[in-house]
Order: sequence, then C-alpha cells, then structure tokens
Amino acid sequence: MTEQPITLTPSLSVPDPHEAIRFYKEAFGATEVYVETVPDGSVYAGLAVGEATFDLSRESADYGNLGPLALGGTPVRLSLIVPDPDAFAERAVAAGARVIFPIEDQPYGYRQGRIEDPFGHQWMIGKPLA
Amino acid sequence: MTEQPITLTPSLSVPDPHEAIRFYKEAFGATEVYVETVPDGSVYAGLAVGEATFDLSRESADYGNLGPLALGGTPVRLSLIVPDPDAFAERAVAAGARVIFPIEDQPYGYRQGRIEDPFGHQWMIGKPLA
Repeated sequence: MTEQPITLTPSLSVPDPHEAIRFYKEAFGATEVYVETVPDGSVYAGLAVGEATFDLSRESADYGNLGPLALGGTPVRLSLIVPDPDAFAERAVAAGARVIFPIEDQPYGYRQGRIEDPFGHQWMIGKPLA
Repeated sequence: MTEQPITLTPSLSVPDPHEAIRFYKEAFGATEVYVETVPDGSVYAGLAVGEATFDLSRESADYGNLGPLALGGTPVRLSLIVPDPDAFAERAVAAGARVIFPIEDQPYGYRQGRIEDPFGHQWMIGKPLA
C-alpha cells in the first residue's frame, strides 16, 4: 500500500460556475475534469490547465463562500507557471481578463505578470527566466 | 528539451509572514522552501506540506493584496488531501485554527471538514473514502 501523497487544490467561488467554465476554457485552454450539480442547485466543477487543477463552486452567502467581486478583493493569488506566459496572458486578455501588471522580466528571476479574471480572481502568469 | 509542466501554486496574503511560517510549521507540519526579505521590507516565503506547496506574502494595501481578515472573508478555499484528515485537523486546531465544519464522512465520497487559520484562510482537510 502506498501512502496517499498530499495535494493542495484551490477552490474558487464564482457567481456562476457554468459561465466560469466557459471563460477558463476560452481564456486558459482549460479542460473539464468534472461538473456536478447537486439537488440544491449548487454546481461544483474541477478544471485542468495542463497538469494543474483547480475547483469551482457557486457563491453561497449561507456558507460564507463569497467571490472576489462580492468581497472587494482576494487574499489568494493563483500562480501559474506555463511554457509561454506572454501567449497565455494574451489569450486570457482576449477572452476578457484584465492586466494588473504586464508580463515582464522580473528582478526575482521570473518572466511574470498579473491578470484578473472577470470574476475577480487574480492570476500570476510566469515562468523562470532561463 | 522537455516542456516545462504547468503548475499552480496559491499565494496567500498574511499580515506577518514570519508569524504565519511559525503557525503553519506547528499546525500543518510545514517546512520552509524559501524565505526572502526584499529591500522594502516585504517578506516572501514558500512552504511545503508533504508534496504540496504554497507561498506567503505580506499584506500590502498599495498592491491591492489584503488578507482575509482585512477583506472580511476569502473567495478561495484551499483543499488539502492528506493521509489522516482527523489527525491533521486536530493538530491544526491545537495550534490555533478554528473548526468551521468538523471532519466527517461526506455524501460526496470524502472524509472532509473545513478549518480557518488565524489569518482567515480557509482549508478543506480531507481524503477520499476507501
């Protein structure tokens, strides 16, 4: 029996997971891992961008799960390391993301920038400088 | 040349990364991957819990990086899959985390609960039911 490895997956609150799935497919080239609608109408989804995965769930004030637009910000930035940050960010912006910091060579050894998606989640897009 | 795999790492804003490092070491058994203080006094750190990694940075109103306590919540829950969720959560609570939902067998096939750390970040702690 091998020990279960420890994994960490961020779960993003969004107003409408179906709309968010459409956005992340177009913007990030994401693929659906699962989409589940439970009897109370809540929707849960898992998406993959290459080897990276994240989850989506519908905002629910009852459970204290508000999205960034409702809260007025986010305390968790999501850092994606991708082969081509410039192309990745360009595609995301064409799909509706907003540039916070453009993709540039950074003094800390990364080519990196920051974008905000239409739901207010913030993504660092970068790769180590060669 | 092998293609860089795509990785996703959450980066958590906290008021004091040094205090947060101490907490996550005690509460989660985390280890330091790096700690970096830059000239303006900002502190960046990377921590590992087994194979899982996350980053910390100091809150900065200037950069729009507020923590959950300053924002009044968080739109990103952090889902950890660990070998023994009960023991993991018990240790975290002993170190100062608060139980939001206790660890229980859930109808969606996981033994899982939710805790909030002293900085307001929310963690789902679970494992798939056998």
